[in-house]
Amino acid sequence: MNTELTLYGYWRSSAAYRVRIALNLKGLAYQQVPVHLVKDGGQQHSAEYQALNPQELLPLLVDKGNGGVRIAQSLAILEYLDEVFPTPALLPSDPVQRAQVRALSLHIACDLHPLNNLRVLQYLTGELGVGEPAKDIWYRHWLHKGLAAVEAGLAIFNDRLSLGERPGYLEACLVPQLYNARRFNCDLDAYPRILAMAARCESLDAFKQAAPEVQPDVQ
Amino acid sequence: MNTELTLYGYWRSSAAYRVRIALNLKGLAYQQVPVHLVKDGGQQHSAEYQALNPQELLPLLVDKGNGGVRIAQSLAILEYLDEVFPTPALLPSDPVQRAQVRALSLHIACDLHPLNNLRVLQYLTGELGVGEPAKDIWYRHWLHKGLAAVEAGLAIFNDRLSLGERPGYLEACLVPQLYNARRFNCDLDAYPRILAMAARCESLDAFKQAAPEVQPDVQ
Repeated sequence: MNTELTLYGYWRSSAAYRVRIALNLKGLAYQQVPVHLVKDGGQQHSAEYQALNPQELLPLLVDKGNGGVRIAQSLAILEYLDEVFPTPALLPSDPVQRAQVRALSLHIACDLHPLNNLRVLQYLTGELGVGEPAKDIWYRHWLHKGLAAVEAGLAIFNDRLSLGERPGYLEACLVPQLYNARRFNCDLDAYPRILAMAARCESLDAFKQAAPEVQPDVQ
Repeated sequence: MNTELTLYGYWRSSAAYRVRIALNLKGLAYQQVPVHLVKDGGQQHSAEYQALNPQELLPLLVDKGNGGVRIAQSLAILEYLDEVFPTPALLPSDPVQRAQVRALSLHIACDLHPLNNLRVLQYLTGELGVGEPAKDIWYRHWLHKGLAAVEAGLAIFNDRLSLGERPGYLEACLVPQLYNARRFNCDLDAYPRILAMAARCESLDAFKQAAPEVQPDVQ
């Protein structure tokens, strides 16, 4: 067990949730430092946190076992963990399968999640004066576009997990996105493959222990 | 030279531009299939393209030399190219340096570019009825937030390129983003490290030949 890893996160940040799942899947112990995304105008914008991560976003992983390196961006952290702690792997070993997993995960991380991120919703209702109903439609628009693409992309897995019988990189991205969708009461009937894949994961300890509701900073 | 690679792209798509740079840096020959992002209501939404890539986004790489595999998402393509055609590498070999390159590249690909993507700007002016001036402020807001984070992140490179004397993964993401910023006449004085890194790349053939203006479908 490596106990030199520290994760700066927030219980409801789905990007931090991805990393918690990945750490748990690898059986890596880690400390958590909560950074409250709303309190004090967003603690991720504090001078203290900005000095650690100029991106002013969560999560951030600090690895004291490797010179105290600070790594931003959830997918960069997943890749790092897979390179430094290779067993059990998060990614398949075959380059084509790795590419397919990354392409679906990046669709969630680049083209779905950032558009519905807190800072974007705040800009819509703040600077742009968009009302709550139109903000809700925006949220659902990008969510359903993204989930539909992922649902179609999952066909290649033939109802198996991304590592066959084991979840990994893809599921670490998928389950937090589904959590967000449920939180906003989105209708998910059109996504049977996503629901089936997530259901197989959600019963596993690695996912249960990464869930927002059981984090130390839950509110 | 591998001539079995086909890139579905668009001259002005900065995600496709990233992949063109990467292919050129590796000296890989490739065919281009243009997909017009505006004509016919956006050819990326055609049934024909959707059958190839359900994400309905560019770019898409098809590798006939590897069973005709279709890979979506520019960063998944960069990772694939680095795994299947490892020399010259796009990423450093050290896991910490790889993580730092990926974290900055992902910041561009996840938290900067998607917010200013064509489909999002279309939603703002269309569904949300946002006027051109407010759309412009939106664009600059996310651009400057993102570039400021990248500028701070580049400090670790000490005025060198991400592979020392050579550009790679990071520069393939940085130069297209800078192209977009210039296209929208954004003031870039606050980003000397970004400008210096890009200037060292833009004189290289791999970058010159990937530039939007010299693509077959330029308009």
